[in-house]
Parts: sequence; structure tokens; C-alpha cells
Amino acid sequence: MTANADTVDRHQANQAGAREAGARAGFADALEPWRASEGLPTPHLAVLLDRLRLNLEQVASIAHAHAVRLRPHVKTHKCIEIARMQLECGAVGITASKPQEALVFIEAGLPSVTVAYPIVAPQAAQTLLQAAERRKCDLRFVVDSVEGAGTIALGVGQGRRAPIFLEIDVGLERCGVKPGSASLEKVVRAVRDSPKLEFRGILSHAGHAYGASGRREIAAIADDERRQLRSVVDALAAQAVDVEEVSVGSTPTVLGAESFAGVTEIRPGNYVFLDATACRLGVAKLDQVSLGIITSVVSVNERYCIIDAGSKVLSSDTGPHGTGGGGFGLCFALGPAASSWGEGRRVARLSEEHGFVEHGGEPLPIGARALVLPNHSCPAVNLADRLVVLEEGRDPQFWVVAARGRTT
Amino acid sequence: MTANADTVDRHQANQAGAREAGARAGFADALEPWRASEGLPTPHLAVLLDRLRLNLEQVASIAHAHAVRLRPHVKTHKCIEIARMQLECGAVGITASKPQEALVFIEAGLPSVTVAYPIVAPQAAQTLLQAAERRKCDLRFVVDSVEGAGTIALGVGQGRRAPIFLEIDVGLERCGVKPGSASLEKVVRAVRDSPKLEFRGILSHAGHAYGASGRREIAAIADDERRQLRSVVDALAAQAVDVEEVSVGSTPTVLGAESFAGVTEIRPGNYVFLDATACRLGVAKLDQVSLGIITSVVSVNERYCIIDAGSKVLSSDTGPHGTGGGGFGLCFALGPAASSWGEGRRVARLSEEHGFVEHGGEPLPIGARALVLPNHSCPAVNLADRLVVLEEGRDPQFWVVAARGRTT
Repeated sequence: MTANADTVDRHQANQAGAREAGARAGFADALEPWRASEGLPTPHLAVLLDRLRLNLEQVASIAHAHAVRLRPHVKTHKCIEIARMQLECGAVGITASKPQEALVFIEAGLPSVTVAYPIVAPQAAQTLLQAAERRKCDLRFVVDSVEGAGTIALGVGQGRRAPIFLEIDVGLERCGVKPGSASLEKVVRAVRDSPKLEFRGILSHAGHAYGASGRREIAAIADDERRQLRSVVDALAAQAVDVEEVSVGSTPTVLGAESFAGVTEIRPGNYVFLDATACRLGVAKLDQVSLGIITSVVSVNERYCIIDAGSKVLSSDTGPHGTGGGGFGLCFALGPAASSWGEGRRVARLSEEHGFVEHGGEPLPIGARALVLPNHSCPAVNLADRLVVLEEGRDPQFWVVAARGRTT
Repeated sequence: MTANADTVDRHQANQAGAREAGARAGFADALEPWRASEGLPTPHLAVLLDRLRLNLEQVASIAHAHAVRLRPHVKTHKCIEIARMQLECGAVGITASKPQEALVFIEAGLPSVTVAYPIVAPQAAQTLLQAAERRKCDLRFVVDSVEGAGTIALGVGQGRRAPIFLEIDVGLERCGVKPGSASLEKVVRAVRDSPKLEFRGILSHAGHAYGASGRREIAAIADDERRQLRSVVDALAAQAVDVEEVSVGSTPTVLGAESFAGVTEIRPGNYVFLDATACRLGVAKLDQVSLGIITSVVSVNERYCIIDAGSKVLSSDTGPHGTGGGGFGLCFALGPAASSWGEGRRVARLSEEHGFVEHGGEPLPIGARALVLPNHSCPAVNLADRLVVLEEGRDPQFWVVAARGRTT
């Protein structure tokens, strides 16, 4: 797992070149591509295909340079077209959250799927296993309890073994067992004792990195995550338990880590689109964000321009896992008025179907279009039925958010 | 518009009786009805039909007692079955938010629809007007700008006039013109000067009542709203402009107002389900909330039970219009463990697919079911494809959230 410095350098040079060109042209020009869906009713979620491709390549380069496998989390886009692009960019498979979300991608023919969610319903495990068998999908599960291991074992067919990852809690205080805990040993034993399960490795999500103050803290969290996982690998090795795979994943730590030593797989999700949170954390620039919400100004009062995207379009997330700063996204004027809001305005409040954008004495006219870069792309996409995909010189394409609402 | 004291008394006696019975039986018993969907995968949105009916009757009684017309807002439920129940309970029609949301109910045959959203796209107005003509629906619009009035006029067919309500901003600082403002006069003139529009009345939404500290403040906000609307009616009367209808609406002010003098129509939405916010405001009790999210415990750590409903199921709303207290809902254990969480536990944090419930040293077992009463029913329903409707002695019914995602 040595760094492929050449690939990284080449990629960074490309990115830097693109960014410099953007800066030269001024930010108003960077807004131009968002106007390509002008003829469509608002609000809608637009994706800039060029930027999406750059984002896919950036992380593929990181994976290649550090010789780690890339298994992106599809919860961000829930879209079969984008999952296929990720495979074309070198991903070995995908990660999904809920069983029904995973099922969409198994049925779409994805070659390998990790269900990174502790399943507690035997029926859910059985449905997935049967679909995977039929579609010849390499299906993997996570567990963090003896009950969870038993649930999956119940669904495994005669003469089969399901690959199992043990989830490690590295600081989010969500799912997973703690390094050095008694339950870690118990769960590993339950997995290894089951004739239906095969212990494959360990997996973590350093989601607390979204609460970091910037890149330095993110790098420290990524380091700490690797240190904790290494301690688990060592402890298991002392008991003659081989840990074949060590899987980590969050967009901030993947973009912000200084090393991936000891890691075999990364599972970032948000990197495809990025958002205002990634920019706040310093792991992305505004002109790398590939997902935006195209809105219209529907009313203007003394303080606010009211846009037609509220919590039912943007979500009320201030950031992942409840992190985040003030406001509900960054708003930019599109079209003739673009320069007046050049630096962007805060979406200060939300109603269900209204966003309140502070106009600071420079209101846009009623009917004007405005772009919102959301705080958190993932829940915004989950509120949409389709993505409007924009590419220079082509009519907009419509991609279905195929796994939207697949919450069970 | 005198109060029908008899009806109110009868209704209040019914409600009080039901509540007393609930208290006698203990809150654990009040949780029993939520177990009727036990066989279904979690998470899902369950509706207790008996409570839904009581909530519909409560507001119908208020409307009847105060001789105001009831035109409920469907943005809460987005469900044709519930809109029809509201009509059976005496509603004269419905209120919708976005044009595409309204269209679902026009096409379903609802007799009268108010689009309580400022439309800025002529195509949207035209689509609605054509559908309303075909379905013989009495369609009404709101405007708060000259541009908005012009937009609707463009869509009106030969020899027709669209009924128009002027939206008044009574304190939310969202849409609407201020009483006494120059734009109020300008917009009224634009409406009255158009051969395609018919000025019908004024309309307001005191959404800032969700930020109130309790019933007393809500009653004051409702009073203030009526006072402001009265000043508009008087000012227009002085210019010989007749205001036929005066429409107000928000669940807190409808449940908390002491008088409806001067009001001709109410448009509450949330009252069908209610939620933790309505309880916080003191306008409802927990055993009146008719919508709950049925979840499973998927993981347990030292501090939290992790349930399988996160921001993609509950939404991250702390309350309507960004109001609210701490947490993301109230969680109750269902089934054998019900008594351990009798008083309910706070959903302290959310990830996209996980809720963090503080167990306070009394964790539920993995796989146990738990009920969440959401902070805000409306965005939670908008995240679901269907409602699971529960009634004693019957199999669960599935009602489609027909206008989910109709954001344009």
C-alpha cells in the first residue's frame, strides 16, 4: 500500500488547473453551467456531469495511489447510472445502507454489494441472499452483535457462507463494538462458530469527522481510526484470527487522510456530489460541488428573498450526523442578476416549501432563478424522484433516484 | 360568527372522557394500538385511524361552533383518502401548497382547491386552470405581488376569472404583503384591474405561532392576526373594495384561538396527525397524536439505543419553520419492554438511517420495536411512500402518500 505519487500528482495538477481557470473567469462564470436546465420547472436537483466525473476520478486516483479498493456508498446518489460510472472508474463494488436500498443495486446487476447496516430481521437477510444468489452478486454484511450474526445466519442457504464484517465504533457512538471490548470478542466468536458465516474483516465509519473544525483535525481523526483498527487486527491476530479486510469510509477522512497504511478498502459516499459541508470542512471547493438545487424566487420582503425550495426539497440537515454551522445552504443568483450575489447568500430559515434567503438589500426580482448548494447532498437527493443531469452541448438527461425511500 | 357553545362543550366532553380513560389505563396501554403493525418491516409510518377521526372531528367542531368554513391544508398528509375524510367531516374543500400537489387533488375530484403558494410560472397556473375546468373544481389562488397576479392572469381562459386571495404577512416574514404597505394597495389594484382575475379576499398563515412558548402566547398571536386582517379589511372598505373572505390557518392558532370573529375560513393542516411540537405547544396531548414511526432497535451502545429511523425517515426538523426544542422526536418502547420507557425517551441525534435514543441505563434489546412520535409530522410523511393505517380488529390498510415529492 505505497502511495502512487505520480497518479496523485497528475490528478492534483488537473484539479488545480481547472480551479485556476475558474478563478480567472470569476465565480459568475462558474455559475453558467447551472443555467442549462433553465426551461424546466423549479425546484429541481441538477447535477453537473463534468464535475461529477472529476469527483469520481479524484477519489479513484486516491484509491489507486494508495492501493486500496474503492467501494463507494450509494446512499448519496441512490442512482444506478452513477453506481455504474463508479464501477467504470475502478470501484470493486458498492456499499449500501438499508436492505431494500441494497436490493435495488443487486437487482441492477452490481457485482458486489456490502450492506453496511446491522440487519435485525431474518426476512430482510434472506431476501437479499436469495437475490444475490440469483444475480451472482458477491454480498457482504456487517454485524456488531451476536443477535445480528444469528439473524444473517438464519437466511443463508445450505452449504453457503455469508462474508461478515465486524463493525468497529471508532468514535461516532453509533453502531459497532469498541476496540478491546468484551463484546468484540463475543461477536467474533459467534461469527466464527457459525457454519453459515465467514469472518472476513473489520469495518468502520468515522462520521464524527463531519464535526471537525478543518483538515488538520480530519487527518487526526483518520489517523486515530487507523490506530484503533490496527489494535483490533493485532488483538485478533494474537488469537489466531486472520483479518483479511480493513474497510474505512467517510468522504472527509478519505479526502483528508495523510495515510491509508493498514487499510484495504475505502467506502466514501458523499464525494460524488460534495456540498456546503465538504466546503466548510476544507476538503472541497465550491466549484467542485456537482449537485445543486435550481430554485425560483417566489416572493420578496424587506429581509428575505423567498425561494421555492424548503425542507421538503433541501432537507433540514445542517450537516451529516447533526453537525454543521448556521443556515441551510448557500444561495447564488443565476442569469442576469448573477453578479449581485456573487459570493453567495445564506439560506437562513426553512419552511416546508420555502427557503428564506437574506438578500442584504439586494433582492432578486420575483421569478429570478437561484442555485442552492445544499448543506448535505444525501438527504436532498432522497427527497427527489429524479436528477436533472447537465452537460454542455446536450439536452438535460433525467436519472431516476432508484433507491429513494428504500428505508426498510 | 357566534360560537356554538353547545357543540364545543359536547366535543370537549368527549375528548376529556377519552383522555381520562387513557390516564386510568396508564400510558403503556395507550401504546397498545401501535403494535397492530407488528408483522411489517420497520421503519414505517403508522396512523391510528380512531385518533385520526377524533382529530378531524375536533377541528370540524371548532369550525362549526364558530361558523367558519373549514378548508384543511393537505400538505400534512398528501393523501387522497384523508382529504375525502375531511370533506365528510364538513370541509368545503382543501388547501394545497405547490401546484403539482394541488393537481393531485384536483385530478382526484376534490370540489374546491386553494393553491396557497405564490405561483411565478405561467405554465403551472395554466396546467392547474385547465385541470380544474375539466374536473369542475373551484380553484383559487393566492398572490402577494403584481408579477404573481400577472402570472395567473396569463393562464386564465377566455371569458373566465380566477378567484384571487391576497396573502397578508402577519408576522412570519415569509410571503405576503404587510397591512398598510404600499405594495398591498398596488397588488389589490393589479388584481382588480385584470379582466381575468376576481379579488375574493385575504389570507394569512401565522406560522410564527410554532415559536410560541405555550397556549397563552398562541392565543395572543391569533388575536393579533385577526386584528391585522381587520385593519386590512377596513382599509380596503374605505376604498370601496369588498373583502368577501378572510382566511386564516395554522394548527396552533386554530386549536388555541379564543375567537374567530371576522374570520370566514380556517386552513389548519397538521391537526390531522399532530406531533411532539403540538404537544410542546400545549395544543395537544401525546395520546392525541395519530401518526407514529414504528422502528426497531438495531444496535445498543453504552449511551444510546440505535433505531432504524434517521433523518431520511423522521426528517431533521426540530419543528415547523425551524422552531423547536431539543431532540428529534419522542421514543417509546413497544411490547414486552413498554413499561421501561413509559415516559418516553428523547431521540437525541440523527444520522441518515439511524436514530440515537438515550436509554438512560435501560437499553431495549436488539430487535425490540419502538415508537417515535415525530417533532413534525408533515416532512416525515413526505419521506414515505405509504401510510400504514391501523384500526382495532382489522388488518392494516395501506394508503398512498399520493402527493409525496410533488415539489414543483
